[in-house]
Amino acid sequence: MLPKAMFSRTLSTSTSALRMNIVVILSGGMDSTTLLYHHLRNGDTVNALSIDYGQKHKKEIDFAKKTCAKLNIDHRVADLSGITDLIDSSALTGIGDVPEGHYADDSMKATVVPNRNMIMMAVAIGWAINEGFDGVSYGAHFGDHAIYPDCRTEFADAMDRVAGLCDYEPVSIYRPFITLTKDEICAIGDSLGVDWGDTWSCYNGRDAHCGKCGTCVERIEAFKLAKVEDPTAYES
Amino acid sequence: MLPKAMFSRTLSTSTSALRMNIVVILSGGMDSTTLLYHHLRNGDTVNALSIDYGQKHKKEIDFAKKTCAKLNIDHRVADLSGITDLIDSSALTGIGDVPEGHYADDSMKATVVPNRNMIMMAVAIGWAINEGFDGVSYGAHFGDHAIYPDCRTEFADAMDRVAGLCDYEPVSIYRPFITLTKDEICAIGDSLGVDWGDTWSCYNGRDAHCGKCGTCVERIEAFKLAKVEDPTAYES
Repeated sequence: MLPKAMFSRTLSTSTSALRMNIVVILSGGMDSTTLLYHHLRNGDTVNALSIDYGQKHKKEIDFAKKTCAKLNIDHRVADLSGITDLIDSSALTGIGDVPEGHYADDSMKATVVPNRNMIMMAVAIGWAINEGFDGVSYGAHFGDHAIYPDCRTEFADAMDRVAGLCDYEPVSIYRPFITLTKDEICAIGDSLGVDWGDTWSCYNGRDAHCGKCGTCVERIEAFKLAKVEDPTAYES
Repeated sequence: MLPKAMFSRTLSTSTSALRMNIVVILSGGMDSTTLLYHHLRNGDTVNALSIDYGQKHKKEIDFAKKTCAKLNIDHRVADLSGITDLIDSSALTGIGDVPEGHYADDSMKATVVPNRNMIMMAVAIGWAINEGFDGVSYGAHFGDHAIYPDCRTEFADAMDRVAGLCDYEPVSIYRPFITLTKDEICAIGDSLGVDWGDTWSCYNGRDAHCGKCGTCVERIEAFKLAKVEDPTAYES
């Protein structure tokens, strides 16, 4: 779990009495990395799951690995690259270019990967059942709602319900950031000691963050609004 | 789709006015193969999806392939063998022996694969969205309810709800056999012209059906109760 010094520092702000065993879906971005720290701060036992679904920016998984190695978390990478051809209508998995612009623009719909979150959660729920864990947590936030149907409250509620019925013991779906904005998550992550240099957002997945795709624009804006120093080296 | 002769023969019994585009989850067993014929009889456009999740009896997929080749169906095999270690608490995916006995015995709980149906459906829904299809259909039946939580009506209802929320356009989950017994499905399959020699049930996946595992016992019983000739060669 957390290195001792960080653990005692972060636990001091804990407000949760109920400790859980949770599989955190960890992309390696700002939100899911903050989510990991959030559950550790709460004293939860955390396993982390990253998914290789053939995304162009699969270097994000290296960042997830780095964070988990640092925090001594049991981290697995589910290799779903064998299904990429079934979900290749997205610019993140198919032949189209990743669109540039604001993350709330209509053009960003090209970055929706068909049923990505249900696929990731289904695997995470399977692992949670396998380990006798209580739940799965994912980092959907308020800013995602404009574009991503599978980040909306209604979807998360319905996932929680079906996860409660898929096995003998119910599994819960946690989504503590679903009503928060990304800059609020950035502020939380900063207070929890997240090392932002260990996170990756850019959909293009080149050497440096491009600074122009929807998720880069969102990253830049989040740091700015949260008044948190952005250590990211952008191409532009 | 169906070869012409069979198509006209089976269409003559069609009762459905509404034709759909459906991804059928096809294990290669009796139920899902009958389900495929059922949707073709209804005039639906059908794609079929089989899943390699590291099951010991993955030879079932060869039977699914054979059926789809015969019926000229677009059939894909999703390779999820990379997640087998996450769901290895089942005797079908881990190191335990496949239990023998009646399929409704408590010992059959060892054959429950953690969240298998949600994982399969999540991928199938992703493919359906990718293709602009209306829905996904799976062959859960009444006899499954005793052991498999993810074959129960409540689970299927909840899956239908979440599938309706995961993308911009809703996807439906069809489960036309969920209130039928396996022998009723066998009778339906027989009337639709299913070639039972093209189906595989046995969880052991050896050269011949073992005749002793839960799914073999269920297969034998279904043919007997439906008064349909069983062409299967059993070990015992």
